[in-house]
Amino acid sequence: MLTSLKRILIGRPLKSTELGEQKLNKTKALAILSSDALSSVAYGPEQILLVLITISAAALWYSVPIALGVLILLLALILSYRQIIFAYPHGGGAYVVSKENLGKYPGLIAGGSLLVDYILTVAVSVSAGTDAITSAFPSLHDHTVAIAVIFVILITILNLRGVTESASILAYPVYLFIIALFILIGAGLYNIWSGGVAPELHAPIGTPIAGISLFLLLKAFASGSSALTGVEAISNAIPNFKSPSPNNAAKTLMAMGILLALLFSGIVCLAYYYGISPAKEVTVVSQIAEQTFGRHFMYFFIQGTTALILILAANTGYSAFPLLAVNLAKDKFIPRMFAARGDRLGYSNGIIMLAAFSILLIILFQGQTEQLIPLYAVGVFIPFTLSQSGMMLKWLRQKPKGWVTRFIINTIGAVISFTVSIMFFLTKFNQVWPVLIFLPLIILLFRQINKHYEAVGEQLRLSTCEPIVPIKGNVIILPVAGITHVVEHSINYAKSLSADQIIAVHIPFEREDEAVFEEKWKNWMPDIRLVTLHSPYRSIIQPFMKFVDTIERKAKESNYQVSVIIPQFIPKKGWHNILHNQTSFYIRARLLYRKDVVVTTVPYHLKK
Amino acid sequence: MLTSLKRILIGRPLKSTELGEQKLNKTKALAILSSDALSSVAYGPEQILLVLITISAAALWYSVPIALGVLILLLALILSYRQIIFAYPHGGGAYVVSKENLGKYPGLIAGGSLLVDYILTVAVSVSAGTDAITSAFPSLHDHTVAIAVIFVILITILNLRGVTESASILAYPVYLFIIALFILIGAGLYNIWSGGVAPELHAPIGTPIAGISLFLLLKAFASGSSALTGVEAISNAIPNFKSPSPNNAAKTLMAMGILLALLFSGIVCLAYYYGISPAKEVTVVSQIAEQTFGRHFMYFFIQGTTALILILAANTGYSAFPLLAVNLAKDKFIPRMFAARGDRLGYSNGIIMLAAFSILLIILFQGQTEQLIPLYAVGVFIPFTLSQSGMMLKWLRQKPKGWVTRFIINTIGAVISFTVSIMFFLTKFNQVWPVLIFLPLIILLFRQINKHYEAVGEQLRLSTCEPIVPIKGNVIILPVAGITHVVEHSINYAKSLSADQIIAVHIPFEREDEAVFEEKWKNWMPDIRLVTLHSPYRSIIQPFMKFVDTIERKAKESNYQVSVIIPQFIPKKGWHNILHNQTSFYIRARLLYRKDVVVTTVPYHLKK
Repeated sequence: MLTSLKRILIGRPLKSTELGEQKLNKTKALAILSSDALSSVAYGPEQILLVLITISAAALWYSVPIALGVLILLLALILSYRQIIFAYPHGGGAYVVSKENLGKYPGLIAGGSLLVDYILTVAVSVSAGTDAITSAFPSLHDHTVAIAVIFVILITILNLRGVTESASILAYPVYLFIIALFILIGAGLYNIWSGGVAPELHAPIGTPIAGISLFLLLKAFASGSSALTGVEAISNAIPNFKSPSPNNAAKTLMAMGILLALLFSGIVCLAYYYGISPAKEVTVVSQIAEQTFGRHFMYFFIQGTTALILILAANTGYSAFPLLAVNLAKDKFIPRMFAARGDRLGYSNGIIMLAAFSILLIILFQGQTEQLIPLYAVGVFIPFTLSQSGMMLKWLRQKPKGWVTRFIINTIGAVISFTVSIMFFLTKFNQVWPVLIFLPLIILLFRQINKHYEAVGEQLRLSTCEPIVPIKGNVIILPVAGITHVVEHSINYAKSLSADQIIAVHIPFEREDEAVFEEKWKNWMPDIRLVTLHSPYRSIIQPFMKFVDTIERKAKESNYQVSVIIPQFIPKKGWHNILHNQTSFYIRARLLYRKDVVVTTVPYHLKK
Repeated sequence: MLTSLKRILIGRPLKSTELGEQKLNKTKALAILSSDALSSVAYGPEQILLVLITISAAALWYSVPIALGVLILLLALILSYRQIIFAYPHGGGAYVVSKENLGKYPGLIAGGSLLVDYILTVAVSVSAGTDAITSAFPSLHDHTVAIAVIFVILITILNLRGVTESASILAYPVYLFIIALFILIGAGLYNIWSGGVAPELHAPIGTPIAGISLFLLLKAFASGSSALTGVEAISNAIPNFKSPSPNNAAKTLMAMGILLALLFSGIVCLAYYYGISPAKEVTVVSQIAEQTFGRHFMYFFIQGTTALILILAANTGYSAFPLLAVNLAKDKFIPRMFAARGDRLGYSNGIIMLAAFSILLIILFQGQTEQLIPLYAVGVFIPFTLSQSGMMLKWLRQKPKGWVTRFIINTIGAVISFTVSIMFFLTKFNQVWPVLIFLPLIILLFRQINKHYEAVGEQLRLSTCEPIVPIKGNVIILPVAGITHVVEHSINYAKSLSADQIIAVHIPFEREDEAVFEEKWKNWMPDIRLVTLHSPYRSIIQPFMKFVDTIERKAKESNYQVSVIIPQFIPKKGWHNILHNQTSFYIRARLLYRKDVVVTTVPYHLKK
């Protein structure tokens, strides 16, 4: 039942050799890996305006130079990530680059911070998209959380089906969004060029503004940089590209950079010329669209594709999180299961984990995840800084041909990323402080997990331990509840093992039952020794464990191995189990975890 | 940790031989077994008035003859249950009586209906008590459900501590309530006698009333009979009494009957003389208390003890449910675990089950359980009718000395109970119909469970099956994940069993790994045969199960037994388990439930 449901939802299992068919071409890769970055165009410019408007409407002209700053940062990031792609063609992005060049802990900071960030991406973008939908249909407003959760589940199922399948479905909305925005920007620019927009609407660039401060401008810049989150996704996901993967990834990255630059500057320009102030109920993009087209079909088309891309931005998290998790799992910092491919060759454990955490966040914040945006932005710029610094060191150490240019590019990237990170802490400390708590906690957890795996590996390795002692003989203990076929069956098996000693143990609750049982046993199985342990407290486990202890201590002295054979009848139907005491289950669990005895279960299958 | 928490909450475990000290004397028994019946005085009279007031205030005089009818019914029930106590001194009440005299199905109807009824008792009475508290402190109103659930949990803990301990604590409020009501009735009667109450307040008995109908009177009578729920509890709980238990139980029952009759008629009398109409916000008892004492200390004393006894009425359910469950479990109609005594010698599984279901009801109905009262009353009168009819048949069959009187008493009881049951269906069908659905379902469930136990018993009994075939030899299959100490340890054990064949099985996911592993193995364990099964779908379980199937089929032909030895390393700390794939757990579960092979786990305990 469960298997066939799984089959319907995610499709038939794929062979490991079918992996090649699951790789992405550039068009699809651009769609699923850049949806996060491109969607930030929908809120990035607004973030800048929101800071500037606190001074005055005239101050809005500063958005143009600030946007220029963001574009320079974007250029630096794209160029440096391009270098990372070629230097680390197996992917891993910030985590691998920082670990290899700066050391274990910088790597873990980058990895931990990105891991959390992808969870935030999913929660924030799905909530934002759901908000866009519920703004359009206010009757759905009470169900925001449920709708957001359903979207997360749908995206999760798509991703469990496999990378290419989700890419094929998700490519359309991404390209529609790009087309919609280009039409909007084109029509807007035409309006301005043809004089359709009154020039009084905006203060000319350079107008002196009272009360403007460097702090405020930096804050506006930092806010605008949140549009650059998602730029690193491609460098994490190189293994998903068709070969030659680094080249294809680099081309996709450049395409994304150009699109992002055009859309971002277009929106900022139009907002400036139209003199748009950010408003609580209507987004900046929506205002621009309304002024350009009126409440025309195009307006709704733009609103619709924006909502869609906000939701699909989550998909970037789904592409990058599992691959990052694989890298961390291979290095033994998170549980090994994250490195195992699922039925459809995706890293399904990572996908499911990401879904679970982001649903948790959505429910905890009741879908109001906007407060998480700064946290999410700072969580991106920390790994940005670390990976760029790592690349700087790499060039300094290796000095390949033409390293100076490369070094300069990465240095610019590192400096700007570092500045932005610091600005987030300076200007938005009350929103980003949680990073300072959870990042150390995550790194501590990574360390503990790593220590455990290392210890296990060491203990299992053959070279390091004392040679094994051969077993001299076997003692078998057999707990018996009554005189039944199940017990008969188990004793038959025990005898076939040619053990040196077989002891049956019976544990009655009442004194009277003791003698009766012993008498019966003597008639039935005279050749098997029976021990009865009266249990005044009506517990089976405790007296039995004590008995096993005693036997084991004696057996160990002469290198005998103690085995406990548990007779167990297996009912025909699963639900029958609740009708029977699960004593054998408890005995087995206790024995395995507490004692050094072998536990053998002899099943007796009931036929009806 | 869990153990010591349990120790604190419910106390140290008791020996089976300490059972005698856990028996009740009459004073305590009266308190905990009659709280349900006595508490119904707080709402029974009101139920009558609520029906009559639908005609007119003048019609309220009918409450006096109706109360007389209820008293006659009470007398009949008390006398017949007294007879049941002596006839069935081991308890069991309606279930045992109906089963033995009327047959299996009437017994199951009585048992099933009481089982559900005790759950309703707990939910209804705790909700009612909580309502009384939140009426006094309106600020608590939003937390009704939470408060009710906490009360259920507290009563559950008390009962898990054991019968006598809960009796010692619960006796005080019950007796305080009785005293409070006697003072109220005494003071009220004195007021009336001394002329302090205006005679115009009530219509004289016999005033003709327009619009009164037999149907309405019957409805009022049925509603008033809900005050009699809980009368059967003592007959279920005879084993909890100090010996001679039947005599003590009978005396307690008589005492309860007298108290109930006095309190019930006193309240009805006062309500009639004071001309009290039922009101939505204030209960009848509260109105009487206010008119008698004003908002005096005594008023609050009466209100407080009433709230308390409503909550403690739940305790009757806790005394009777587990004992009824024991009887049903001994007859194999419900899971066996209900017949096992817990650490404190109470039937803790029954207690916990009762708590769980009643908390579920409280949450489902959001603490508004008044709607369940009719359901609860009809659930009592069905077993009343069945047990009285059973007793009639018993006297007719056995005809002991003086059987005619006994027969007449039980016949009167049966007829009145039957009439009341029918009246509930006629007058309150829209509230009692669920009985017609869940009663058949419960009986079906009982039957299924019983069939399963009978089938199991038959298959396990030695007499009925073919003789066992001795095992000719052993084949051992050993799944191996790598070349480690864990595997070495398991092979060492397998060798000590002098098996006829040992086969190691390795399941690689990649073709390349296959040859490498085989080569390594040959160098390491040349004397153990290795089989590698390539798994293109990355599943360990499926290819392994197929392999076991093949081996098993061959082995069976020559009476060889197949054993699977699972090497398992046990981490030092529990949380480490989530860091390791639980493949061995899945293999074990699948093997035990699907195949006829012995499953042996060889633990390898990690030291760090």
